[in-house]
Order: sequence, then structure tokens, then C-alpha cells
Amino acid sequence: MFVTKKMSFSAAHRLFNPKLSEEENREIYGKCSNPHGHGHFYTLEITVKGKIDERTGMIINIDDLEDVAKKEIIDKVDHKNLNLDVDFLKDTIPTMENLAKKFWEILKDKIPKGELYKIKIYESGNNYVIYKGD
Amino acid sequence: MFVTKKMSFSAAHRLFNPKLSEEENREIYGKCSNPHGHGHFYTLEITVKGKIDERTGMIINIDDLEDVAKKEIIDKVDHKNLNLDVDFLKDTIPTMENLAKKFWEILKDKIPKGELYKIKIYESGNNYVIYKGD
Amino acid sequence: MFVTKKMSFSAAHRLFNPKLSEEENREIYGKCSNPHGHGHFYTLEITVKGKIDERTGMIINIDDLEDVAKKEIIDKVDHKNLNLDVDFLKDTIPTMENLAKKFWEILKDKIPKGELYKIKIYESGNNYVIYKGD
Amino acid sequence: MFVTKKMSFSAAHRLFNPKLSEEENREIYGKCSNPHGHGHFYTLEITVKGKIDERTGMIINIDDLEDVAKKEIIDKVDHKNLNLDVDFLKDTIPTMENLAKKFWEILKDKIPKGELYKIKIYESGNNYVIYKGD
Amino acid sequence: MFVTKKMSFSAAHRLFNPKLSEEENREIYGKCSNPHGHGHFYTLEITVKGKIDERTGMIINIDDLEDVAKKEIIDKVDHKNLNLDVDFLKDTIPTMENLAKKFWEILKDKIPKGELYKIKIYESGNNYVIYKGD
Amino acid sequence: MFVTKKMSFSAAHRLFNPKLSEEENREIYGKCSNPHGHGHFYTLEITVKGKIDERTGMIINIDDLEDVAKKEIIDKVDHKNLNLDVDFLKDTIPTMENLAKKFWEILKDKIPKGELYKIKIYESGNNYVIYKGD
Repeated sequence: MFVTKKMSFSAAHRLFNPKLSEEENREIYGKCSNPHGHGHFYTLEITVKGKIDERTGMIINIDDLEDVAKKEIIDKVDHKNLNLDVDFLKDTIPTMENLAKKFWEILKDKIPKGELYKIKIYESGNNYVIYKGD
Repeated sequence: MFVTKKMSFSAAHRLFNPKLSEEENREIYGKCSNPHGHGHFYTLEITVKGKIDERTGMIINIDDLEDVAKKEIIDKVDHKNLNLDVDFLKDTIPTMENLAKKFWEILKDKIPKGELYKIKIYESGNNYVIYKGD
Repeated sequence: MFVTKKMSFSAAHRLFNPKLSEEENREIYGKCSNPHGHGHFYTLEITVKGKIDERTGMIINIDDLEDVAKKEIIDKVDHKNLNLDVDFLKDTIPTMENLAKKFWEILKDKIPKGELYKIKIYESGNNYVIYKGD
Repeated sequence: MFVTKKMSFSAAHRLFNPKLSEEENREIYGKCSNPHGHGHFYTLEITVKGKIDERTGMIINIDDLEDVAKKEIIDKVDHKNLNLDVDFLKDTIPTMENLAKKFWEILKDKIPKGELYKIKIYESGNNYVIYKGD
Repeated sequence: MFVTKKMSFSAAHRLFNPKLSEEENREIYGKCSNPHGHGHFYTLEITVKGKIDERTGMIINIDDLEDVAKKEIIDKVDHKNLNLDVDFLKDTIPTMENLAKKFWEILKDKIPKGELYKIKIYESGNNYVIYKGD
Repeated sequence: MFVTKKMSFSAAHRLFNPKLSEEENREIYGKCSNPHGHGHFYTLEITVKGKIDERTGMIINIDDLEDVAKKEIIDKVDHKNLNLDVDFLKDTIPTMENLAKKFWEILKDKIPKGELYKIKIYESGNNYVIYKGD
């Protein structure tokens, strides 16, 4: 049994690898490497796997899951610049893939009941990544 | 190969375990334990696994799947109070998790072709559960 | 210039006119008159008309609009039974139309800047009403 | 008869009025005034009013409308920083309201058939503005 | 007060004016003039204007509105070819604009309570027309 | 780690097995076997599985994935009749299931980085298939 909480946040980012030249960055990331950055409305889905607790009929109280995700992730990235404002993203190119991996690492030991199963991030309505750990 | 039918229903429910006190219920379920209940617009996805039938090019006629789900589930829960009006939910706390399990039990022997693979229930656009059997 | 805030709430209701017989109610409201009620996920859009304030570039700070709507409406109807739990709906059949009219009356003198222009309520993804005052 | 084209763009912005202090900006715009900016996925709807052309059965070829909007607006704001990268937004606080007004001014004389009737901008799924000219 | 019912249908069509040459059609309609046609998932919104009936709390029973629209429109266009299968579209180029006008003409005298106010047709998620009569 | 690109196309089709009689086709496919065909707005999701490339922070540049899918699939089916206009669907009943299988076969050796993991096709908002290869 799997339960999922969907949340969202707005953030700016620039895709840019400082070890590469301007030209290489432009070639890899196209308009996503524009110097002043651009923005996205991200959707984050956090899925927890577990058994139904007979007493509550729930795997986990989804409000508790939301509280953890809000405190550990959303409050740190919402209305921020992902290249400049977020401690745990320092030295990380803020692609969807890297966000998913970082969010997984942050959340995997903080789920109050059940275990973290999946992180899904939509960068737009048409692009998303899924990470289930290694 | 997997084929999925999405359907929806409106229902009222109250999250409340009669074996616990008012206070315990309030602590576990928060505003979801309000005495007079509240409502949701549920989305139900039923996924069937099977092989393509060469004659029809389909795993299962999705209208047949819809007919079964309508008869066995939707007609019994739509525009109903899940705590009071539904026989198969008697003595069950109507959480998303318990709904998914009950729907699975009801449907698993009634799929006309292929086999039931997954039940997904959205309680709102932001919360959902998935059940694939034990 | 018009600015709109969209919010949502879950509520149970029963469509029933106590001045009419069971049969008349059943005929008018169909399954919406089921005795134990049923539920909906409502979406509420509040539109304010005004001029751009040169100093802020905004008609109204949309967070202020949200605060008013949350306090005056959402907190009073979310996770409630609209027939039993809401003071301002006493003696009102809780149809979409009546909700729109009541919300309008409550909000029209409480908008901090600009003036209330439109109330839109979705009872489901497929049914909605719009009210702009008399 | 009205025809509408919906398009979208991703952009970063910071809400900040340089004539006001840091504190005043923080008070007015909240987290939207964070120094490094944040991002949005904007949806833009352009509505043209006109009569059906008997020869084509259309008011305007919606692809022509899209071409104009793409050239005049989308290409200039998509994947850009609205405070720094967009000529026509220099000296403008990039609120939804100001974007709507600027887009109107740019498009109103460039619609190939019919006349511009409405600009609608969603800054997120829950906030939008509408501008129909003065 | 306005109440709206949203419905949908799947149909094939080809945009083609038989009085024009192949080349002219290709120039006007582009890929929409492909000889074997193509398809759309249309969404239709029908808006009725009226007063709240004190007895029912409704302008019109939205199920009655749905019944009329289903009988007069949806049953005649769903899973059909709009160029070949629909009597009321004979000799009409099946653009969104012409559909809206035809649907208006069909429905305007058949609304059981209140009066027809608006027809909105989405040909895709990104293109729509609105018609309110002449 | 999985990355998904969502794209869409409009197409007409008729479900019909030429080896069966009119009556058998009508019985199997219902209104989907109407002689002149009907249409759909299809959504296609292509999921690629791979590891994060340290240099780019991405599994695959999602624009490269889009380019392949556009060239190999979308350009060949968009605004087409799936029974008559598409070479790789000759002698195939154009059900969702068969489309998924054909798209898989076409794409599986053409993914520039990582490997094809999943094809998901929505024929409408309420019906979809998933194929992950044999």
C-alpha cells in the first residue's frame, strides 16, 4: 500500500555547470542557461510505502507527511533561487534529476511512519522525473 | 501491458474510530473527524494487466471494465455517506487506504479479462493511495 | 483590471427543501437528496475589480484577498456539513447558487481594496455557477 | 464571437519597487521580494473578438494569432528574468497586473484579424488577472 | 446568476472549403485540411442565465440541462465525423466557430428554465471559442 | 532514476477488424467502429531510465528526447487518420494498446541516452494504457 502527498513550489534556477565554458553550457542547456535565470512552478509528489495501521485505517497521517515535507523541503525552496538561496543545493546543478536525489536524501530518514518509496518532480506539466533510491 | 479506467464519485465521510475517545479521534484525524462529516470528490483508477487479444487489439474492452466498476463500486458509493450508506464499508473507517483495499477485494474476481493489477484513489487532487494487493 | 484568487474546500451537503415532501425532494434533486448526504470538493474563485496601484503594481495584494476569504468563508465551510454546521447557511438549501449568493453577501463589504466583481463556484469539475450581484 | 489562444512561459521575477525601502518591499510583497528572485510557470490567454469569415469559417486563423503572440511576447519573456532581461518591462514592477497591461499595449495593434478583447494571465494555477483595456 | 454544464465529445473533422482549391485550403487550414481528417477531444460548456427559484434553490436543475444537451448535441456529434455524419453540419465547415454558432441555434429555444447565455467550445486544451448570440 | 516527456497529438481513427463482420465489429467496438471514424486528443508519455550524468546533472537532455519522439512519432500521427495515413500502422487495429506497442518498437533503439522504460498513452482523460516491453 502506497500513499502520496502532492505539493508545489515556485522557484528560479539557471542550469549551468561552472566547470564548463559558456558555449558548452549553452550547447547542453540551451535557453535554460540564460544568465539571469528563469522560473518554474514545480510539483513534488512524495510516496510512502507501508501497511495500514488497524487503529487509524491509515499508513501514515498524510498531514504529518505534509508537515515534514513542508519543513524540510518546501520552506527551503519555495520562492527561492535554487542556485543561490538553498544550502543543500550548493555545488549542485539544479536539474530535476538532482532535485529528486537531494529531496530523497533529506526525506528518507525523516518519514514518521512507513518508508519513503518514491520522489516525483514535475518541472512543468510536460516534464518530470521519478527517483526511488539506488 | 496495462490498461486503466478512471472514474469518479462524490461522497461524504467522517474519519472516526468508535473504539477510541472523541479526543483521540480529534488528535488522529483533525478536522476530518467533525461529527457531521464532510465531503470529497474521489477519483478512482482501476488498472488491469493482460496481453493484447489479436482479434480485437485490446487487453479488455474498457467499456466492460467500466460496467463492472460502475455496478460493483460507483453505484454503491456515489452520492452516498461512506460511514452510513455502504454495506461493504460497515465496520470500516472510510480512509483512502481502506477504500482501496475494499475495492480491490470486490473487483479482483470480477474482472472479465486480464487480471486486476492496481487500485488508485485520489481523495483530493493532492492526496492519493495505490494498492496492488498483498 | 480584474484579479482572481482560486481556493478550495471539501464539504458534505444534502439538497433538501423541508417544506416539500420526500417525493418532491427526490424528484427535484435526485440522488442529491440522499438522507445521509454526500460530498463535494468545491473550488471557489473570487474576482476583484480595481485599478493598478502605481506604488505596488497590484490592484490588491492577493494574499490579503486570500486572508479575508479564508477567515470569512473557507474556515467556516471546509470539512463541514453545509446543512448542519454553518451558521450563515441555516435555513438555506445548500445549492451552488445559494452558496454563491451567500458568499457574495459576506464578502462584498470586506474586500480591502477594489470591489468584489464575481463569485464562481465549481461543485465538481463539470458544474459551476457565477454570480455578479444583482 | 470570441476566439482564445492559450500559451505558456517560464520566467523568474522579483517583486520590488526601487523607490521603497527593503522593509516596505518586504511588507508589501512578502516572500515575493526575495533578493535572488523566484520563478513561475505563467499561462497567457489572448482573446480576439470578431465575426466569422464566411470563406474560412473562422474569425482568425488561430495559428496566425499564435505566431504574433510568440514573436511579440513569448520569445521575449520565456526562460527570462522579467526584472533584468525584458526591454518592455524596464522600469516596471513585474506583477501579473503590469504584465497584462504591457502585453495588451504590445498586442492591441498587431492582431491580424478581429480586435484584441482580453488578456488573461495565470501566475499560478490559483492566481490570475484579466485586462480588457481601459 | 449563471450556471454552466461542461460536457465533452470525441469527433473527427477536416477543415476544407469545397469552393476553394486544394492549394487555397492547404494555405488557410494547414495540416487541418489533411484529406482523411483528424480528431479532437472537444469540451463544450453551456451557460444558462436566470434567477434562483426559491423553491429549489437552483436556476435550473443541471441534470435537465445535461439531458437536453446530450439529446440535441452530444449524441449527434460524439464519436462521429463532423464533415460526414452530422445532419445539422451539412454544408458547414466544421470549425470551432461554426460549431459554437450551430450549437447556439439548436439550444437557444430548448433550455427548460432560464435562457441560454453562452456556448464555449474547447477544440483542444489551448484553443477555444465563445459565442453569446448576435 | 526515470525521466518522462509528455507530448500530445490529435488523430482520427476507426476501430475495425477487417477479418470480422460489420456486426462483430459493432459488438466489440460499439460506437468506436462508426464507418467515418472519430477523433481523439492523445497524450503520449515516454519514460527513459538511466543514471545522472555528473557533467550535466541530467539523465538525458529532455529536448533531445522530445526531438526523437517528434520526428519518429508525433510528426507521423498528428492531424492524421490512424487507419489510412500512417505507414507503421498499416494492418494494425489502431487501439491504444497497439499504438503503445508500435511506439515502443519504433523508439526502443532510438533513445540517445539511457534506455526506454515505459510508454503511456491516454486516449482520453479517462482511459490509458502502459507498456514496458515484453
